[in-house]
Amino acid sequence: MVQDWKAKAEAKRQSILDSIPSKWKLDKVPSAQEQRDVTGKYIQQFLDPKEVEITETDAVGIAKQVASGTWTAVAVTEAFCHRASLAHQLVSCLHETFFDAALSDAKALDAYFAEHKKVKGPLHGVPVSLKDQFHVKDVETSMGYVGWIGTFEGKPDDPRKGVYESEMVRELRNLGAVLYCKTSVPHTLMAGETVNNIIKYTYNPKNRNLSCGGSSGGEGALIGLRGSPLGFGTDIGGSIRIPSAFNGLYGIRPSAGRLPYEGMANSMDGQNTVLSVVGPLATTAGSVKLAVQSLLSQNPHLYDPMVVEMPWRQAEEDFIHKQSKSSGLCFGVMKSDGVALAQPPVTRAIDMVVSALEKEGHKVIEWKPTPTHEELSNWIFKSFGFDGGKDLQGAFGLSGEDVAKQVLLPPDAKEFTGTDIAAVNVEQRAAKKKYMDYWNSTAELTGTGRPVDAVISPVAPYAAARPEGYKYYNFTVWVNGLDYTSAVVPVTTADKNKDKYPEGYTPISEADKVVVEDYDAEIYDGAHVSVQLVGRRFHEERMLAAAEYVGSLLGR
Amino acid sequence: MVQDWKAKAEAKRQSILDSIPSKWKLDKVPSAQEQRDVTGKYIQQFLDPKEVEITETDAVGIAKQVASGTWTAVAVTEAFCHRASLAHQLVSCLHETFFDAALSDAKALDAYFAEHKKVKGPLHGVPVSLKDQFHVKDVETSMGYVGWIGTFEGKPDDPRKGVYESEMVRELRNLGAVLYCKTSVPHTLMAGETVNNIIKYTYNPKNRNLSCGGSSGGEGALIGLRGSPLGFGTDIGGSIRIPSAFNGLYGIRPSAGRLPYEGMANSMDGQNTVLSVVGPLATTAGSVKLAVQSLLSQNPHLYDPMVVEMPWRQAEEDFIHKQSKSSGLCFGVMKSDGVALAQPPVTRAIDMVVSALEKEGHKVIEWKPTPTHEELSNWIFKSFGFDGGKDLQGAFGLSGEDVAKQVLLPPDAKEFTGTDIAAVNVEQRAAKKKYMDYWNSTAELTGTGRPVDAVISPVAPYAAARPEGYKYYNFTVWVNGLDYTSAVVPVTTADKNKDKYPEGYTPISEADKVVVEDYDAEIYDGAHVSVQLVGRRFHEERMLAAAEYVGSLLGR
Repeated sequence: MVQDWKAKAEAKRQSILDSIPSKWKLDKVPSAQEQRDVTGKYIQQFLDPKEVEITETDAVGIAKQVASGTWTAVAVTEAFCHRASLAHQLVSCLHETFFDAALSDAKALDAYFAEHKKVKGPLHGVPVSLKDQFHVKDVETSMGYVGWIGTFEGKPDDPRKGVYESEMVRELRNLGAVLYCKTSVPHTLMAGETVNNIIKYTYNPKNRNLSCGGSSGGEGALIGLRGSPLGFGTDIGGSIRIPSAFNGLYGIRPSAGRLPYEGMANSMDGQNTVLSVVGPLATTAGSVKLAVQSLLSQNPHLYDPMVVEMPWRQAEEDFIHKQSKSSGLCFGVMKSDGVALAQPPVTRAIDMVVSALEKEGHKVIEWKPTPTHEELSNWIFKSFGFDGGKDLQGAFGLSGEDVAKQVLLPPDAKEFTGTDIAAVNVEQRAAKKKYMDYWNSTAELTGTGRPVDAVISPVAPYAAARPEGYKYYNFTVWVNGLDYTSAVVPVTTADKNKDKYPEGYTPISEADKVVVEDYDAEIYDGAHVSVQLVGRRFHEERMLAAAEYVGSLLGR
Repeated sequence: MVQDWKAKAEAKRQSILDSIPSKWKLDKVPSAQEQRDVTGKYIQQFLDPKEVEITETDAVGIAKQVASGTWTAVAVTEAFCHRASLAHQLVSCLHETFFDAALSDAKALDAYFAEHKKVKGPLHGVPVSLKDQFHVKDVETSMGYVGWIGTFEGKPDDPRKGVYESEMVRELRNLGAVLYCKTSVPHTLMAGETVNNIIKYTYNPKNRNLSCGGSSGGEGALIGLRGSPLGFGTDIGGSIRIPSAFNGLYGIRPSAGRLPYEGMANSMDGQNTVLSVVGPLATTAGSVKLAVQSLLSQNPHLYDPMVVEMPWRQAEEDFIHKQSKSSGLCFGVMKSDGVALAQPPVTRAIDMVVSALEKEGHKVIEWKPTPTHEELSNWIFKSFGFDGGKDLQGAFGLSGEDVAKQVLLPPDAKEFTGTDIAAVNVEQRAAKKKYMDYWNSTAELTGTGRPVDAVISPVAPYAAARPEGYKYYNFTVWVNGLDYTSAVVPVTTADKNKDKYPEGYTPISEADKVVVEDYDAEIYDGAHVSVQLVGRRFHEERMLAAAEYVGSLLGR
């Protein structure tokens, strides 16, 4: 059995590498010691100047260049297939490549453009990468499980195998996007790092001592290396935000029911207390917005029963822009949740954001919610264990493969009963109500006549986690438990000369002690540092506008 | 124990009657044989002409008369307190009265109007009745359970007892509504009739051989007798629509998350697969619309975490009005769900609606969905039994009281596990998707370029059920399982001379046989007959406009 799954995993691993055209193969990949940062100049050396230009243009710019006839979809697709191939060789971030299908789609798009003198949709010719939960015809979905290789979600004879496509894939094709690869995930999806027995470990391209984050880690690493201008991940506990933050990207965790999850593979499907959501990661705030706006234009509520009928609301975006210009915003800020303080690079990034906002005349107040985030995480983590781990164990059981240490498995195999689950749901609703009341109450403190517009919070205590080091999830899971909207904004990079704990800092808890002990200015040096801006439920338009604004203040 | 609960129930029953001022007491209540119909002329004899005028004005008209200073809130409130008192004596439809508090509130509203020369809100001076799940300060909530008497939801020492108010109560007060009574429910809320050990049985005022429906049966009976112009019920399997239909009223079952349920008592709270929703019942479509519009103006999404940020969308209402005028609508129609055919009065009502629409040039096509409604009800009823009946049994166990035969108890006491519940949730999502695809596919058949605008469906196979006769729920539960929006439209009354099964009709199933055998033209004669117009999720504006339009075609 052991030989069996190891051989299967190895064969799959090799087949991914083999799918890379030989002209794009690297002779040698340096170690992290030899070459910590493989982004920027390092990866550029393997590309021609045109490829560099294309791949370092954001999705908004690509769409414009193709729509104006300056670039062809084929040229854009080829450049990204090349750069994605390099990225995978450098940090092991792909589960699937389908470059031939992508080039064929790109050709069809170019033909369409030539014939109709207009684009097929707002994403015409934009390459889009997908986390390996999306089903794409003629492409496998392993989700990092060896037992899923050669099957449809573990079922060998399912008629959907090889032919089925997730709803969002259909919409992306309608919009003119070019799909070309699927990216790595930690098996189970329940981890802040990306590791499985197929691709092994996806490292952070900016600092290969560190993790790219998880669970949409392949997306983070690939886009971080500009092997994709725009990709989609999912987030049940931070899985879009962590890789966005760790790779210096913008990303959004929308509220459940805003974007279509229909027809995607998932873990613990049917657990409907804390829902996994799907959302984009990209190199600019504008690209994330383009993705959300474009998808909403497809009326996803008519094709995914979980999606709410809520088109893009321009007035909501405009509201933030208007308040930005008139120094009319108020933010809450939280560097510690009362259990752990973020590490020095992250607290510095938060200070930078606060200073930038205050300099523009906006107000920032301390965020001290009730219930506390510790109270929230109690029932949030319960919801991940409703089935006592049965779904995850079932998936591992298909192959007998080893389970990565990073995976958050429920502590025991006891299933919750209907009564237990109902009690958690009631607790969740009460907590949401209490937190909502707290948020409303801040109208007394902001001076704007409104409650705070967004909360500035760490995504993780770390700039990026060290392998096996992602241990503290409470900075992200509160957003999932409450179903808020959160946009990640890249702020700076860790600096060993600046980022130090205050002299004589005493950890405020056992968890904080672990965070403090984890910190190493030398190892983290150069890593991306980001923050999240958390808004109320369905405040996607507002948070995207706020992210764009904060990014602009920081000169990004 | 038995003596105990019987005495408690009897004392509560007596205390409701005692709360009625003696000047409003009836000397004698005739039997159903003596007086089948106690609405209209019968109840009017106990009121003075002004009281009749006021109580037979709809909520829209009342709001106008009070806003113009023609009527005082006090006069309106007194008239409805009087008529509600009569209604309770005739059909046993109230669990609580709080007339003194109502009159005091009405006085305050009149004083506000006198001082500010304007109304407090769009419901200024409109009496509103509430199903006995709403918490109102200084008023008990028994929800029909003897064991809840003297407690807060069964907890004797809960600090909320007597002081807590549900979120919608707060909003209704803000809007200027006058709250004055709470209406009867079947204990557990899980029945299409209204029966419990306190008020015994709420009969149908239009035909006292029959049930008023359930579970918002007290609302149906009270508004049917014009003892309230507007009330709120809840619906997890038909509980707003059945009493609306049985009492010749308009009512809406909105999609979950449109109106605020926050802070209400409920059965099986925390079961979040098929959610109970709250919505209005009233004598006119305009009144139902006024209630929904008014509540949405209160931004319930800021006070109830389950409510989606979706204001009243005037364009959606206008769309239906515009299509109505230009013969541009297309309806689906369903008289049988493939398992049971509605009884003759209901099929005639549906034919009347279809004829009226076709006469105006609208199109009506047969509704033949996949999955079938039988397939849907399979998992819908499972969701009601996730806790194996523990919640209901716990509530009964508080007093040891007898359980009414009509109550839908789960067949056994086995709880579902986390895995079982997840499987039902996945089944639900798949069914919603398939049904949605069917709905979309009708665009090929309508000739309007759109899928059908609404589906005309029976609410129940019966015009109104005979006591212990409500047995077939499949005409309502599909709407709950799929979370669609449904508005009830009163159509006609049963007519023993017209309403007969087709010669030689053969039942199509065992369930249909029970429906056929239940039919008795003599007993049902004169009962209200209604239909429901079912729209897609969150189509409240459209269904209210459609209900208003169809009602107007029928001359209601």
